[in-house]
Parts: sequence; C-alpha cells; structure tokens
Amino acid sequence: MPALIAVPPPDQSADLGASAAPVELLLSLFLLFIGAKAGEEIARRLGQPAVVGELLGGFIVGPNALALVVPGETAAVLAEIGVVILLFAVGLEVRLDDLLAVGRPAVLTAVIAMFLPIVAGVAIGIAIGEPLGGAAFIGLALAATSIGITSRVLSDMGVLDRTYARVVLGAAVIDDVLALIAIGLVAGAAQGDLSASTLLIGVAAIGLVGVGFAAARRARGLKREVFTFPLFADTPLVPAFIMMFTFALLSAYIGLAAIIGAFVAGLIIAETEAREELEHEIRPLGLIFTPFFFGVTGAQLDLGSLLDPGILVLAIVLTVAGVVTKALGGILGARSIGRWGSIAVGAGMVPRGEVGIVVVNLGLGAGLLGAGIFNGLLVAVVLTTVIAPYLLQIVIPRANEEALRSAEAKAGIGPTGPPPI
Amino acid sequence: MPALIAVPPPDQSADLGASAAPVELLLSLFLLFIGAKAGEEIARRLGQPAVVGELLGGFIVGPNALALVVPGETAAVLAEIGVVILLFAVGLEVRLDDLLAVGRPAVLTAVIAMFLPIVAGVAIGIAIGEPLGGAAFIGLALAATSIGITSRVLSDMGVLDRTYARVVLGAAVIDDVLALIAIGLVAGAAQGDLSASTLLIGVAAIGLVGVGFAAARRARGLKREVFTFPLFADTPLVPAFIMMFTFALLSAYIGLAAIIGAFVAGLIIAETEAREELEHEIRPLGLIFTPFFFGVTGAQLDLGSLLDPGILVLAIVLTVAGVVTKALGGILGARSIGRWGSIAVGAGMVPRGEVGIVVVNLGLGAGLLGAGIFNGLLVAVVLTTVIAPYLLQIVIPRANEEALRSAEAKAGIGPTGPPPI
Repeated sequence: MPALIAVPPPDQSADLGASAAPVELLLSLFLLFIGAKAGEEIARRLGQPAVVGELLGGFIVGPNALALVVPGETAAVLAEIGVVILLFAVGLEVRLDDLLAVGRPAVLTAVIAMFLPIVAGVAIGIAIGEPLGGAAFIGLALAATSIGITSRVLSDMGVLDRTYARVVLGAAVIDDVLALIAIGLVAGAAQGDLSASTLLIGVAAIGLVGVGFAAARRARGLKREVFTFPLFADTPLVPAFIMMFTFALLSAYIGLAAIIGAFVAGLIIAETEAREELEHEIRPLGLIFTPFFFGVTGAQLDLGSLLDPGILVLAIVLTVAGVVTKALGGILGARSIGRWGSIAVGAGMVPRGEVGIVVVNLGLGAGLLGAGIFNGLLVAVVLTTVIAPYLLQIVIPRANEEALRSAEAKAGIGPTGPPPI
Repeated sequence: MPALIAVPPPDQSADLGASAAPVELLLSLFLLFIGAKAGEEIARRLGQPAVVGELLGGFIVGPNALALVVPGETAAVLAEIGVVILLFAVGLEVRLDDLLAVGRPAVLTAVIAMFLPIVAGVAIGIAIGEPLGGAAFIGLALAATSIGITSRVLSDMGVLDRTYARVVLGAAVIDDVLALIAIGLVAGAAQGDLSASTLLIGVAAIGLVGVGFAAARRARGLKREVFTFPLFADTPLVPAFIMMFTFALLSAYIGLAAIIGAFVAGLIIAETEAREELEHEIRPLGLIFTPFFFGVTGAQLDLGSLLDPGILVLAIVLTVAGVVTKALGGILGARSIGRWGSIAVGAGMVPRGEVGIVVVNLGLGAGLLGAGIFNGLLVAVVLTTVIAPYLLQIVIPRANEEALRSAEAKAGIGPTGPPPI
C-alpha cells in the first residue's frame, strides 16, 4: 500500500522502513535501468559498443536531456555496487601469476601514462593562462584512469585473458595508487599544507594491494568449504560478497577507489576452488547492478555544452592530449608485449570516467578551476570515456592478430619446428 | 578516491554521481547486511528460524539497540527490491492451476481472516476507550497480512508446493486487495470523504490480478526466446527482471503492495520455458537483496518498549487477539484441506510485518491513534511477525504428516487397494 504512505507526518517516516521506499524513487531507478538497457540494445543493433549505448541511454533519460531521472544518493549507491561487482568479477577471471608476469610493463605504463598527461595538462593550463594550481588539476584530471569502462569492453570482447588486458588491469591498480598520492600532494600544496599524511595514505594504499597479493598467493587451492562453512551459506556467494565489500570499503577508507579493493578480493578468490561456482553466481548480480553504473555515469554527461564553441575547442584539445598521452604511455611502457598490444594497453587507459569527474569536481571545490575550464575539462573527461570503447574495438583485433602471428613464429622455430637434421 | 569527495561544495554534489555514494552510507548498508547474516547464523546454530535471526540481527545493529545503522531511503529501496525479488521467486515456484485449485479455501480464509481481526480490534479499541476511528485502525492493523516472512519460512522448509502453502499465498493476494479497499474506506470515512475512488482502486486492483492470471494462462509453454530476443539478453534474467519490476510498480501505483505484482509476474513466467533457468539466475539476487528486507524490518523493532508494563499488557492482548483471529480464519476458511493444514494456513497469515507497520503509521498520521495505543499496537505487529516462524515450525510438520496419512488412506481405498473380491 505504498501509495498511501504520504499520510504519516515526516517525523514518523523513519519508522516506515521497508515500506517507505517512495514509489517515485523506485520508478526513477527503474527508468535509469531501462534507459541503459534500451541504449545498449540500440547500440548493439547499430554495431556500436554496448557500453556506449548504456552511457548514452543514461544521458538521454538523465537531467541533461529528457530529465526523466535525476540520479540521487540511492542511484549512486547502486552504481557504486555495480562497478564494485564488475571489477570483482574481472578479478575472478585473472590469475595473480599472470598479473605479476606483466608487472614490469604494467608499472612502466602506469608511471609514463600518469607522467605524460600531467605534463600535457599543466602545459595546456599555463598556455591558456590558468594559475599553476588550476593547471595542476587539469593535469591530474587527464592522468586519471577509470578501469570500469575498459573492463566491460574487454569482458564483452572475451579478451580478459590476453596479455594486454592484464597489463591494463595491473597498470590501472598502480595508476590509482599513484593518482591517490598525486591528488594528496596537489590538494595539500593548494591548501599550503603538505603534511606527512599524504605519504601515510600512499603507504597504506600500497600496503593494502600488497597484502591482497600475498593473500592471493596463500589462497591458492583453498577448498570451497572455506566459504560455505557458515550455515547461512549453501554456496560461496554470500561470504564472497562480504569479502568483496570489506575490501572495497577498506580501499575506499584508505582513499583508493573502492573498485581496487574489489578487484583484489576477486584476485584472491580466483585462486581458490570456489572460483568457477562464484563466476556463475556473480553474473546475475552484475547484470542487474552494473547498468546503474553506466546509466549514472551517462546521466552526468552534458553533451549540450559541446554547443558552446569555446568549450568545444578546449574540450577537443584536452581530449586529443588525453588520448595521445595515454596511448604514448602504453606504447612506451608496454612495448615489450608487441606493437599493437602496447597500443591496446594505451587505448585501455584512455577513459577517465568517474575518477576524472571526481578530480574535476575536487579542483572546482578547491577554487582552483574556473567555470569555463571546468566545463571544457568535464566534457573532455566524458569524451575520453565515450571514445575509448571505439579505440579498443579498432585496436584489439589487430593486437589479437599480432599475438597469433607471434605465436606462430615462435612455434616455427620452437619444439614443433623441423628437427635439427 | 571517495574519501576525498568531501571537498567539493554541496551544490556540485549532484554532478559527482556514481562516485558520490558516501563511504559512510555504503558502510552502514554493509553493517545492516552483516547484522542480518550474523543474526541468521546464530539463530540457525541455536536451532531457531533463520528469519527470526535476520530480524533480530537488524534490530541489534539498528537505531533501537546499538544504533550502528539508521536505515534511510537507500536501505528502504534495497529492502523493497529484496522482498519484491523474494515474492517473484515464490511466484516462479507456483503453478497457476495449483493456485486456482485452492481458490475456494483461499477466498474463504482471506475473508474470514480479515473480518475476525477487524471485529476483535474494534472491540478491544472500544473496550479501552478509543473513539471509533482509532478502534477501526486497530482492527485494520490486526487484519493486515505480510506474506514476506511466511514465504521465506515456507521456502526455507521446502514446502512451497504443499496445499496449505498455496492457500496462504492465494489468501495473501486476496487479503491485500481487501485491505486496500478497507483502508481506503476507513481513511475516507475518517476524513469525511467517502468517494468513489476507493471503489475504483479496488476494481483496478482486482483487474491487475485478473489480467495477470489470464496472462499466466496464455504464457503456458512460451519459448525461452520470448525473453532472450533482445541482443542484451543472453539469458532470460534482465527481461524477466524488467517484467517483474513493471508489475511491482503497477501494483504499487494502484495502491497494492509491490510484492503482489512481483508475485503475479513470477506466476506468469513460471508457465514459460524460461522458468528453470530463471530460478537459478534469480537466486543470487535474492541472497544479496532479501537480507536488507529482513534487516530493515528488524531495525524497526523497538523491543525496549516492552519494558513499559502498560504497553506490554496492551501489546500482549493485541498479539493474542491477532494470532487467535488469524488462526481461526485459517481453521474456518481452509478446513477443507485438513485440520493441521488449515492451522498451518492460519499460522501463515499471522505476521503483520511491514503492512501492519504502515497501517499503524497511517492511523497515527490521521490523528486517530494516541501515542500509548500506537506503541502497543506497533509492538503487537512486531510480535506477530517474530512469533509466526515459530508457529509455522510447530504446525508444518504436523500438516505434512496429516497430508501423508491422508494420501496413504486414499491409496488404501483407491486403485492400489485390495481388489473387490
């Protein structure tokens, strides 16, 4: 009888609990879900990347277009759980050894693909007359990497087990740790308060990832019963979900993105015997939760601001700089895995997504970014997010072909080659 | 980097979207989930019903005990989706024909188990000196039925396919339609405005259920492809989820509980070939969402108010009246299905849960219930909810034994009996 709930006085509303969920809110969340799914359907039928469809679907029902939905706190929570589940599922598909095997190119890529965009962003900022603090935030926004979009594309294309996919994932984890430290430094410098806490946060972040990796090594071959010993757990899902959420929250409290913790939790469980069953159980949760992430992200797009020529030019300059510097980061950092593979890594680092949006808003909040540059930067962040799936769609088939040819070449001179007589 | 989000000014917070989910809110939701699951674990280890553990777990972390969690709008949404999924899953396990086969006892039970509590509630209200309006709300609160708790217990005990389970489900649907009309009448009378809209709402409610039943008949044997034709749907889950949510929202907009629509959607899909696959896919969603329903319901409990002797006595009188009248409703309405079976039906109708809480709050909001009677009535609603699983645990084994003996008796005089020579 929710339609009648309006009658009680506001001070009683806390008592209503389960029945107090306003029908309007449920409808609004439902429309966001429908928008994302309808967008995906249209995109797929037009041969476009599914995730671009979900983003545009969210944009169309969102506040900057039809305004059917204005995502609030609840949508944000569903979106956050959605991307946490997405990265947890990605972690489930990755073996720690495979990730460590690409440690060198991943570290190099992360460092170069953070350094170059910062330099480019600061240079552009100074060129257009921003003070150093504002320029630094432009650099940081261009340096951020949101792995959510890329993970989804790699998963959709079924290439999460490829070398370049692992380099992107490893680099994204390192990138997030670096970004955390860099933001702490810039925000601290802006407030004239460069305390030791930034360093401590950095150490804690590295510690969490390190402990996670060590736990993954120890978790190898753990029996399914480790997860199903509670009486409430007929299957590993609920204990694994609790572990995922614990890591995500720890990660968020340290200051890292929650998805980093979720990814590490996935890595750990991937080593246990519960892996395969969990991959099946987590799938329905991903299908229902993750559209909220892409829908909410899409609802933040303000494609209308592209109509302002000043913003458009600035956004294009920043977008080009953002794409080129990340691509170069991949090419320089991951060249050991092959030419197209390294370009695929660079393309995978392109989307700034919600991480970039947070940085841009931080800069605005700190009073370091004016309204004009704020809009241009926000549009650039959004464009990198929409462009990336297209870049990946072009690059990945070539990277796969390159890997195939390289494997054939190795086979030709390897053990299956002609005998040495 | 959610921990840094506090920096942007409040007017920018809407732009943050996906990243704006405050870590504190995520933690609070997580604690609610953990509380419910820990409560379930302890209850099970003590041999108590799982659902009582989840309720008490929610109470303990909730505002009336440890106050770790004060459920807000987001918790209410997760709880509502949780109970919607629960009733959808129950609908998936029920065949329309089986439900219609118990139509007569279900209708009788619903009518009697609504009439008797209203009479008892009004009588108690008048006896303690309440005006007629207040007495009517006491009656309504005692007449409400929340099928969420009972569904969960029946599902936990694996008896959803029994005759008494179907009578309870059918009666709950009818009960909700009757309660909707009764509340409209009482609320309208209280405001001196007894318009035709109450009748219209009643007709719409009956119409929705009727259309759903007709659709279920038509859906018989529909191919899986009916659900998987969209490109985004590799499996039936997302289209089925959309259908479930559509029915739940329609139901809520008419004024029925959202769970009635979800149950009907489940009934429809149960007739199609997608049923078995969906039962597997919906399970993980139920495992994650439904603890929020029981946790939030538990967080509404205020067991401390039992320490007030006046409230305690009133609550006990109302609880006894509530249990006895519902039990009598089952015994009189469903006696055709056997003695213990009919008692099981009555026990299944006992919990008032969130429906009762809504009615009590409506009465308070309409100025028809004083603070003293409000608290006593609220505690009685809660007690019926906590007692019901125990009643079911006692009654159901006897009902099963009775059904077994009855089947044996029939077999003895039936075709497998001794030949007539």
